[in-house]
Amino acid sequence: MPNAQTIAESYIAFWNAADPEERRRRYRQDWDERATYVDPVMRGSGPDEIGALVAGVQQRFAGFSFRLIGAADGYGDYVRFRWALGPAGAEAPIEGSDVVRLSGGRIAEVIGFLDKVPG
Amino acid sequence: MPNAQTIAESYIAFWNAADPEERRRRYRQDWDERATYVDPVMRGSGPDEIGALVAGVQQRFAGFSFRLIGAADGYGDYVRFRWALGPAGAEAPIEGSDVVRLSGGRIAEVIGFLDKVPG
Repeated sequence: MPNAQTIAESYIAFWNAADPEERRRRYRQDWDERATYVDPVMRGSGPDEIGALVAGVQQRFAGFSFRLIGAADGYGDYVRFRWALGPAGAEAPIEGSDVVRLSGGRIAEVIGFLDKVPG
Repeated sequence: MPNAQTIAESYIAFWNAADPEERRRRYRQDWDERATYVDPVMRGSGPDEIGALVAGVQQRFAGFSFRLIGAADGYGDYVRFRWALGPAGAEAPIEGSDVVRLSGGRIAEVIGFLDKVPG
């Protein structure tokens, strides 16, 4: 399987991709066609729904971008990592932790949690 | 669904149950019959395999017990929490983070990660 750090970096790049065509390309490359995504505020399945979630977050948090916090960690088909969402060069107001299940080396399931939200 | 803290406490009590009959009772009460468990060092499915994993950990770490670190967190069918494994009244040498997926209010899937292991 791809290593945990590579998976995490590709995942973050997907969430930061502003161009829908780039998101589609990254989805085809890294994700399972029937992948599911869930976190405390949204959920979706497959490239159209998950792409729409990313577009919605980018619209809501214009000017913010995602970055990894620390190193990704994984074993077998499972990867976990922490991320921050915020403006460049400033403290991020939002942080979370995601767990990813791979299938055939592709992202098949994401379970997300929020670690920090604006007070 | 049962709240996140209740699920986490029942889960920890299951891992600490030294009596096989108590484990079976707790499994029937809290877990889905076909539940799956995976972490970096072991995996299993259903009451017999998962019960054997617990028995194996108890044998390997005799005198240690599990406890929760902080409060459990959850939404929908997902719960996460951190735990420590160690002797009573001393710093625990092992810590981990588990993500649980519920189905019908019962534990259907556990994905475990290790946060601290003996050096």
